[in-house]
Amino acid sequence: MKYNAISGFPELMPEEQVIFDNMLDIIENIYKLFGFIHIETPAVERKSLLLAKSGEEKEIYTLGRHHTQEEMPDKDGLALHFDLTVPLARYATSHMENLSFPFRRYQIQKVWRGERAQSGRYREFYQCDADILGKNDLNLTANVEILTAVATILEKLEVGNFIIKINHRLILAEIVKYFGVNENNIPAVFRIIDKIDKIGIDKTKEYLCEIDKQNNIRTEELIRFITYESSVDETIKHIEKMSVDNEKVTIGLNEIKYTVKNLKLSGVSEKNFKIDLKIVRGLDYYTGMVFETNLIDHTELGSICSGGRYDNLTESLGKKKLPGVGMSIGLSRLFLPLLKKNIWHKDKIIIGSDILVIPLTKEADSISFETAKLIRNRGKKTEIYAGDRSIKKSLKYANKQKINTVIIIGEDEMNNGTIKVKDMETGKETNIKLSDLKDKNLELTTIIVNE
Amino acid sequence: MKYNAISGFPELMPEEQVIFDNMLDIIENIYKLFGFIHIETPAVERKSLLLAKSGEEKEIYTLGRHHTQEEMPDKDGLALHFDLTVPLARYATSHMENLSFPFRRYQIQKVWRGERAQSGRYREFYQCDADILGKNDLNLTANVEILTAVATILEKLEVGNFIIKINHRLILAEIVKYFGVNENNIPAVFRIIDKIDKIGIDKTKEYLCEIDKQNNIRTEELIRFITYESSVDETIKHIEKMSVDNEKVTIGLNEIKYTVKNLKLSGVSEKNFKIDLKIVRGLDYYTGMVFETNLIDHTELGSICSGGRYDNLTESLGKKKLPGVGMSIGLSRLFLPLLKKNIWHKDKIIIGSDILVIPLTKEADSISFETAKLIRNRGKKTEIYAGDRSIKKSLKYANKQKINTVIIIGEDEMNNGTIKVKDMETGKETNIKLSDLKDKNLELTTIIVNE
Repeated sequence: MKYNAISGFPELMPEEQVIFDNMLDIIENIYKLFGFIHIETPAVERKSLLLAKSGEEKEIYTLGRHHTQEEMPDKDGLALHFDLTVPLARYATSHMENLSFPFRRYQIQKVWRGERAQSGRYREFYQCDADILGKNDLNLTANVEILTAVATILEKLEVGNFIIKINHRLILAEIVKYFGVNENNIPAVFRIIDKIDKIGIDKTKEYLCEIDKQNNIRTEELIRFITYESSVDETIKHIEKMSVDNEKVTIGLNEIKYTVKNLKLSGVSEKNFKIDLKIVRGLDYYTGMVFETNLIDHTELGSICSGGRYDNLTESLGKKKLPGVGMSIGLSRLFLPLLKKNIWHKDKIIIGSDILVIPLTKEADSISFETAKLIRNRGKKTEIYAGDRSIKKSLKYANKQKINTVIIIGEDEMNNGTIKVKDMETGKETNIKLSDLKDKNLELTTIIVNE
Repeated sequence: MKYNAISGFPELMPEEQVIFDNMLDIIENIYKLFGFIHIETPAVERKSLLLAKSGEEKEIYTLGRHHTQEEMPDKDGLALHFDLTVPLARYATSHMENLSFPFRRYQIQKVWRGERAQSGRYREFYQCDADILGKNDLNLTANVEILTAVATILEKLEVGNFIIKINHRLILAEIVKYFGVNENNIPAVFRIIDKIDKIGIDKTKEYLCEIDKQNNIRTEELIRFITYESSVDETIKHIEKMSVDNEKVTIGLNEIKYTVKNLKLSGVSEKNFKIDLKIVRGLDYYTGMVFETNLIDHTELGSICSGGRYDNLTESLGKKKLPGVGMSIGLSRLFLPLLKKNIWHKDKIIIGSDILVIPLTKEADSISFETAKLIRNRGKKTEIYAGDRSIKKSLKYANKQKINTVIIIGEDEMNNGTIKVKDMETGKETNIKLSDLKDKNLELTTIIVNE
């Protein structure tokens, strides 16, 4: 029987899990600090809902039942969610009457995609999402709040310098039209531009020409325009050239100006964001601001946090418009490659108990249970060694687990009514009275130091 | 398009999620206090592994891929795990060389079962597991540690009185043999006894007679013996009658005696456990102590926490014996019915921000961002109201979310360089200087109270 993990379904060793959990905690606490509330949706949704939103690019896992080979309870069957945005739209639509709007929620869950196994692609991975949904109205403060949350989290995560690359769908659509792209071809052109950093300028040209049957697109100029790189202010001037007679560009540009001005007031450093006209975001539902985020020292990871503004996501669910803006951190995608680079010094991570209690004989067990109880009552993580009765093996275990304090209880200790406390670092041993440990007012450290 | 949740896949409203998360936190913190370390395994395992361990009773969900209709990467396909014990066995076997033993791990994850939808049965639910695995050796302290963790958690969860019902597989096997059950029929008889509380005495007799083709089983006596109910000491005497000439009963009974004696020393109250000879646990892998737990005031929930000792779980994976003992809390199964009884007063739960900042005009946004930043720096959960520019709607939202402090910024405030702080409970309004808020040394409460 095979017992190794399955390709694309990563699992962590305990010390790695500690680092990962710590990052999850940071993300969750900042979401809470920004007033997002927690929800969790089932891993499973109706296949029809997921297919309607997944497009062709996201392969979903469908569910079957083994023993009964029964039809799924719904005619259309069930599947595992591939992101947390579609479940949010379904949740908000379904519970609309009982939720407060603007609805600020965060959601940290695994998602699944039936990708071909390849480096950096996972079939099961964590997403950490935060979104703000309005009922009819959602003002622009929401955009800035989302981007500020992104920057605050990435600073706290200590994964090095990062840059949030901001664009606006309205502006980009007008740009491509200006350079000759037919309205109908915009989605296809967007998909090409979305990959420009991956495939390079030449391939981009090639793919654009393939679409451009009538040779209308001024490919060179288009690419030159959107690959412009400069400071925020200069890039705004660059776009302003197009906004003169174009209402939509003006709208988009005003939003961008509002956003960058207030991001600074919101505490986001100018070095952490820029305007990048190549940013598209693959998904069709974005309608306004869109963004991606790169780690400056690890650009090979691609975007580790992205999102944007969408105004029509819930319409297809046949309900009210719930305009929204959101972010998603692909934590596994960020974490697993950085883990390989060992930036967190995982060999130094302490994973288990503060104190190990070692009963040397079965007769010593009773006192060990009492001792463990008294120490746990003081809030110290404590375990009783449950291997065989060998002081050598017990201490080896303590060393391996980096447990600094061990308590040894053998025959001598039982006769004297004491326990032996050993500091694993210094090797120093101290005998303390069990009765002292029972004195609730005495701190553990006091007892150990005083004796 | 359907947008309601799918039967058997529960999801919570935000205030319910707060209660649930709080319970998860309690469980997790006590697991840590007992020195368990966190691991998480993929939701997906090989179908062959799961089928080998699931028996006939647990219906598993298998995975397919929609778009490509491709063969699964493994010949035998993939499926969602139905518990956390089989994944633990796979994890420990697979990573044995890199883990420390005894390996104390906790795991809190969703599991999936293709059950028929019925009250109290979920297809997706949380399990909270803790286990201790030894390498070759695992002494009896581990059994007591597990049961102590159970009792400590259930006290902290504040779900009312509970009783842990303890039995021993060795003893039960000898009892049924003594009353005439053939060795080969033990598993079948165990399955019947396992359901005795659900189906009642009469049905139990009936089912036992069906098995008993040669009419060897002294059914009446067997049932009378195992349904004996009394104090721990009396039940031990009751069992002792059988142990006189039976080595296996003596072994089992000595373990039981050891366990109950040390449970008390470990701080578990005598009112929270008893010996119950009817306890079996459905799964075949248990070999020693087994237990289930009931809530005294909610017995209809069935066992909310169960587990036991297993010595051969990993053998079928072709590796070393890893004797273990573990517990599993079916948190969803406990939580969802109690939620319906509203024992937690969910209408009083506060779910969102401490402070709501309300910019009355778009011009006030900039100061709002600065204000929010300064308050968040002081660790207060803060959000900017992102609905339309209506003071009425903003305050209604604050009320609905039970946010007690709102900060209003309008034209007056902007002209004066102040912000208006409103206490929603008293209605009291205070104007404070933005410059005071910028003074990092000033506590928020000091500023608000002093002005």
